[in-house]
Amino acid sequence: MTQQIISVGRDVLAKARQSAQELRDEFTRRGILVVNIMSSPGAGKTTLLQATARHWQGRRKMAVLVGDLATDRDAQRLAPLAPTIQLTTGGACHLELPLVERGLERLGELDCDFLFIENVGNLVCPASHDLSEHVRVIVLSTTEGDDKPAKYPKAFRTSQILVINKTDLLPHVPFSVEAAINDARQIQPRIRAVAVSAHRQEHIADWCNLLEEAHAELRATGQVLSQNR
Amino acid sequence: MTQQIISVGRDVLAKARQSAQELRDEFTRRGILVVNIMSSPGAGKTTLLQATARHWQGRRKMAVLVGDLATDRDAQRLAPLAPTIQLTTGGACHLELPLVERGLERLGELDCDFLFIENVGNLVCPASHDLSEHVRVIVLSTTEGDDKPAKYPKAFRTSQILVINKTDLLPHVPFSVEAAINDARQIQPRIRAVAVSAHRQEHIADWCNLLEEAHAELRATGQVLSQNR
Repeated sequence: MTQQIISVGRDVLAKARQSAQELRDEFTRRGILVVNIMSSPGAGKTTLLQATARHWQGRRKMAVLVGDLATDRDAQRLAPLAPTIQLTTGGACHLELPLVERGLERLGELDCDFLFIENVGNLVCPASHDLSEHVRVIVLSTTEGDDKPAKYPKAFRTSQILVINKTDLLPHVPFSVEAAINDARQIQPRIRAVAVSAHRQEHIADWCNLLEEAHAELRATGQVLSQNR
Repeated sequence: MTQQIISVGRDVLAKARQSAQELRDEFTRRGILVVNIMSSPGAGKTTLLQATARHWQGRRKMAVLVGDLATDRDAQRLAPLAPTIQLTTGGACHLELPLVERGLERLGELDCDFLFIENVGNLVCPASHDLSEHVRVIVLSTTEGDDKPAKYPKAFRTSQILVINKTDLLPHVPFSVEAAINDARQIQPRIRAVAVSAHRQEHIADWCNLLEEAHAELRATGQVLSQNR
């Protein structure tokens, strides 16, 4: 019995991986960089995307799929700035590919350079699911403590970019940007790091430059950054 | 095949519920209040427990089981203040009862009034697992935004106490304590709420009073607060 369950599980996982790769290949052909953003609840994923849209203001086109267990609060915040579809998991702790695919159908014909997938706020479970992204981003806010990378290793190990957010609160919290980056590089030596205040629109250009580099690399070579899976 | 998997799943869940209830009954007989603390990563669970131990300073006895995916950093912070065992899930996103039971064996003969179980930092998955607690506590920090209860409803719906932490940062963040409590009461009308700064040891007496009330109620009646399951 146990054996049968395991074999079914493996089959499902292999199929999911294949579907994600096929979708990623399609995005690669179309020159759309797909970015999966993970973080704890409240680390500022939605605010970062608002700041990103304001920074680019028509110079770059972006679309957003935003995941939550419940409510469409995040989509309401983003919709004035970019085409956005809310994905509601109905209680599940992470996004999976079929829900992303349904969101893509609702977005319609994609005319954009960047497709952001804002995952459910959770530092654990989303790290185990390939959503067809080229780049995986982990957002860590300065109020969460600089000890998080070692405590939540998979999310950091499988990410290519670390965004440290809420730098405006650094004078008020016990957090060392340097310690957090060092901790993350113990887990994933190749991770690229930027520190921003999305709320104050500070250093957003650094973050957008990383994305633009990755997008240029995707168009030129069909590959982006280093895959850390 | 699918049918078989589901029936096995149900059997396992029913058994887990029964084991949790038996363990809870044992704690009730011994007059030990078990408190399961849930929150996002970095909301301040460990700091709250440090502040709690400092507040009681020998007047009340407490012990701690602290869960993380990896590292024993939290146990190192708590061990000078109270008997503490680190539970390491090895990547799993929440604590389950068998790991708690192994931790209890390592704690040895329990001579305490309060047993705290600090769950893995995750606002989703821990809410689905009964760890034999009498009281479930959700900690929400002011830096996470006051919109979290509706977005992560199960964690709030199944909790009896809401602790709003990091009130020292209120001047610097867009967060309304009143809005967060109202949002939580839309989800769980009976939830009791306190606002504290664990980092500054402020209003910790309010939190400890709630626990002491629950403990007195447990000793007097064998029941605590209202169960919101």
